[in-house]
Amino acid sequence: MSLAIIMPERNGQGLAERLWALDADLDIQIWPQLERPEDVRFAVCWAPPAGALQSLPQLDVVQSLGAGVDGLAQQIPIGVRLCRTVSPSLKSDMRDYVLLSILAEQRQWDAMAKDQAKHHWQPRHYRRGGTVGIMGLGELGQAVASGLAALGFTLKGWSRTPKELDGVQCFDGPAQLGAFLGELDYLVCLLPLTDQTRGLMDRDFFQRLGKAPYLIHAGRGPQLVESDLLAALDNQWLRGACLDVFHQEPLPAGHPFWAHPRIRITPHCASVTSGKELAKAVYHNYLAMRQGLALNHLVDTTQEY
Amino acid sequence: MSLAIIMPERNGQGLAERLWALDADLDIQIWPQLERPEDVRFAVCWAPPAGALQSLPQLDVVQSLGAGVDGLAQQIPIGVRLCRTVSPSLKSDMRDYVLLSILAEQRQWDAMAKDQAKHHWQPRHYRRGGTVGIMGLGELGQAVASGLAALGFTLKGWSRTPKELDGVQCFDGPAQLGAFLGELDYLVCLLPLTDQTRGLMDRDFFQRLGKAPYLIHAGRGPQLVESDLLAALDNQWLRGACLDVFHQEPLPAGHPFWAHPRIRITPHCASVTSGKELAKAVYHNYLAMRQGLALNHLVDTTQEY
Repeated sequence: MSLAIIMPERNGQGLAERLWALDADLDIQIWPQLERPEDVRFAVCWAPPAGALQSLPQLDVVQSLGAGVDGLAQQIPIGVRLCRTVSPSLKSDMRDYVLLSILAEQRQWDAMAKDQAKHHWQPRHYRRGGTVGIMGLGELGQAVASGLAALGFTLKGWSRTPKELDGVQCFDGPAQLGAFLGELDYLVCLLPLTDQTRGLMDRDFFQRLGKAPYLIHAGRGPQLVESDLLAALDNQWLRGACLDVFHQEPLPAGHPFWAHPRIRITPHCASVTSGKELAKAVYHNYLAMRQGLALNHLVDTTQEY
Repeated sequence: MSLAIIMPERNGQGLAERLWALDADLDIQIWPQLERPEDVRFAVCWAPPAGALQSLPQLDVVQSLGAGVDGLAQQIPIGVRLCRTVSPSLKSDMRDYVLLSILAEQRQWDAMAKDQAKHHWQPRHYRRGGTVGIMGLGELGQAVASGLAALGFTLKGWSRTPKELDGVQCFDGPAQLGAFLGELDYLVCLLPLTDQTRGLMDRDFFQRLGKAPYLIHAGRGPQLVESDLLAALDNQWLRGACLDVFHQEPLPAGHPFWAHPRIRITPHCASVTSGKELAKAVYHNYLAMRQGLALNHLVDTTQEY
């Protein structure tokens, strides 16, 4: 029984070594050297080449490297189970990224850096508190909500299915999106990429915002219609945006987002699965598969997450 | 019975209006128009002119505009009581400032802004967690500690007198300073300005740091020997610093701190008493004085805070 690592753009060897550190007897094959594809029961994947998964006749479980499974859900063979990786630091990283983005905007942190570059002393007004709307109330969204609640923010949440969370006014589904979008000071997107969320943040969406919040987008690039974001900023439907994800990554050098005075760019680094935690999560699920136990973070492929 | 507002460089009229909104019958005199100095029992002060307080024969209580009373303790007439103003937002502002400084340093937030200016996509390594040492465990220090604890930081604290705080390893006095300074990833200064803290952060102090932490200084300017900070950075006793307070404010345009690549400057804005909360705090103490009740945030002038 063999475990395959299929991550053409990532360090597959590094992951293999971390797994061997947990269990020196593991039979691991690393793409593209899959010499015994017929032995592979479990695959760890990130952006696998087309057809790679179909070449593994005994494949039972595929685990995505990250919290997202976009791209994987569509190419997974029938009958194969799909899991995500949601490690503890993935949650705390996302919580800290959203806190940082909001606190920095409240304080005009970037404007103060520009003042410093000019040796200019300029005390600036700062915002306090406010209402934050979080789209996506899974494990990452809940971690963000509790971090923000501890700092005294008022919280609203929106998700596909109904949720009940302490201290969060919860909305769900398309019918309640309008009520969710009213009265926000900050709007955070942590949604998974699905057919329902692709292109969600478009002109119509931004026009429904009750006041002009600051957008923090750390979901997936294709959820945002990029030209409509520029219109929303021009029309003061949004007062600014901090973006971690984009349609094309790396963001091309000539893209209008780079130089926009009210857009803050971070290079898809809000939350990164640590190698150590990835190995632990993969090993846990690999053992669970072998022993016929429940898998962690199993994806409902009909919902794409 | 009259209340005097003596804040030559601040908006005394604004404070008076907020106080009248609380109680339209208040007898308020605003410096320099103190027409009946003999009626003044209570004074709200910030940087009062020399001799101003001595000209008030019935003065009973002086309340400082902020959390600090440096400069006031020395000039207060004998028998007059001195109070500080510690409003709720003063605590949450300081908590948020320290969180922001630490999270921004962990993420290399400023370096990412420079990358953006060059349209350069550069994912960067980030730190997670660590040990934070807080000097000063009064109301502001405790608010900072609980904010950091909620994010999973390990906490050490140092204060003049012994303290016991949940989740904080507490040290006190000069004899325990060395033990406190070991093994810190971040060092936060929130001390009041007293004879004991003036010049505390000097070359000897920085040499005692067990590893090279990042300094966040939001106490008072004269606690730091500025040339010794530069030496500490040069010698890698500190890996960087975020400074909100300085010997001379505004920081002079030619000061070497402005252009130092490892110093972040903020213009004394970490925590600012809001006008509304100041009025409420002053009115509370004014009534307490009139009714012979205990005053909030009474200062022990022998300890200068």
